[in-house]
Amino acid sequence: MIADFTPETVTCEQLAALAERDLSDLPIIDPATRIGPCVGAARNFYAVGLNYARHARETNNPEPKEPVLFSKSTSSICGPNDPIILPRGSEKTDWEVELGIIIGRPCSYVSQEEALDYVAGFCTINDVSERAYQIERGGQWIKGKSAPNFGPLGPWLVTPDEAGDPQNLGLSLSVNGETVQNSSTADMIFSVAEIISYMSGFMRLMPGDIIATGTPEGVGLGLTPPRFLSAGDIVELSVEGLGTQRQTVVANDQ
Amino acid sequence: MIADFTPETVTCEQLAALAERDLSDLPIIDPATRIGPCVGAARNFYAVGLNYARHARETNNPEPKEPVLFSKSTSSICGPNDPIILPRGSEKTDWEVELGIIIGRPCSYVSQEEALDYVAGFCTINDVSERAYQIERGGQWIKGKSAPNFGPLGPWLVTPDEAGDPQNLGLSLSVNGETVQNSSTADMIFSVAEIISYMSGFMRLMPGDIIATGTPEGVGLGLTPPRFLSAGDIVELSVEGLGTQRQTVVANDQ
Repeated sequence: MIADFTPETVTCEQLAALAERDLSDLPIIDPATRIGPCVGAARNFYAVGLNYARHARETNNPEPKEPVLFSKSTSSICGPNDPIILPRGSEKTDWEVELGIIIGRPCSYVSQEEALDYVAGFCTINDVSERAYQIERGGQWIKGKSAPNFGPLGPWLVTPDEAGDPQNLGLSLSVNGETVQNSSTADMIFSVAEIISYMSGFMRLMPGDIIATGTPEGVGLGLTPPRFLSAGDIVELSVEGLGTQRQTVVANDQ
Repeated sequence: MIADFTPETVTCEQLAALAERDLSDLPIIDPATRIGPCVGAARNFYAVGLNYARHARETNNPEPKEPVLFSKSTSSICGPNDPIILPRGSEKTDWEVELGIIIGRPCSYVSQEEALDYVAGFCTINDVSERAYQIERGGQWIKGKSAPNFGPLGPWLVTPDEAGDPQNLGLSLSVNGETVQNSSTADMIFSVAEIISYMSGFMRLMPGDIIATGTPEGVGLGLTPPRFLSAGDIVELSVEGLGTQRQTVVANDQ
């Protein structure tokens, strides 16, 4: 079924109803117990890069003077516990726990003071990234951010009244039980309100749009030596109050 | 109305039915005679950069060794004759005539030989670009490619059997009647088949996805001195057999 997606406003209940996608041809977990992504029908999956100072430093990038924007393919979206699928031949698939914003109303040229009024909710995101594709293959980051299942969303879309101050949420990620990322959204360079206000001057944000707000230090690329994911690894991540994700890394043997 | 968009296949008739979006809050032309975009419900609007050698040269970029990928916000999509809206304060809004590909079937890891089987059709695209936002504001190109009405699509979605050889189509663009771009898709560095095959190794292409395949030389940024669009300018562009677009440039006075 195909349909247009042009609401002027959208309720959280409507967004929650959008969760399910047909992933029948991907190696997913038991369909009887699978949780879908908390937003399944996004028409834009934006992301902010280098939004934590220590993460910028660990990847040898300067601290940005204004938000760095890129996007992930919407076909990367999957449920919070779906497997991380290593692209064929991938040797540098990496993790990134992030606070996700879901936009609830169309939004152009809004001030920082108004920005949070346009938020439908927040969620946990793993901004899975293939570093060779992202950095070594020429041009823009989208190439390393977009493979199938590189965008686990959820388990929950938490409304702003329930989520509390978005600049005071702990976030952490472990690989095989070892904590590798452990920080707080208080350490963001650009706040949620600053990000929405800034972005809304460059593009019209629409209901259901997802914005991943950047990851703190502790990604595999930043370790000495760098460490990337292998089939069989278990990744667990959470943002405080937004729920936990658990992914098994699998090879793409399709 | 909101709905999911996860068909396994999509017909051209279905794609054509997706054209209309609510643009009632944008300064559009007479709604009685307006033509909508030929694909309105895309969930990804990809683009290839620097895909014509002389355009790479005119913008002081090396010829890419593999396709450069970026994306435009889907909220930039508009009809072929809708106005080009200058973002607030914009001084460097530029034009780019391009051959557009519309994907018709989900597509992962396809060979060049199979790639054209996944095409629903082709269309004319103006990949409108704000060069200061794209190049001077830090990071990735999406910032300069995504403003409302920066993605005129159409007027037609032309099926492959009607379009003929996609590597032998003239394409041209004029500003106020003066031809500034005039080339052929024969001059692409990476062909339509190469682009689809290449991209399908990085992301799962989905029905309705749009791929703008790059622009030939003659953009405003490449002129000496550079020349950008002003309110009142008229832009006309076409790709051979895919129809003509005509846009009036307007200021954003919202």
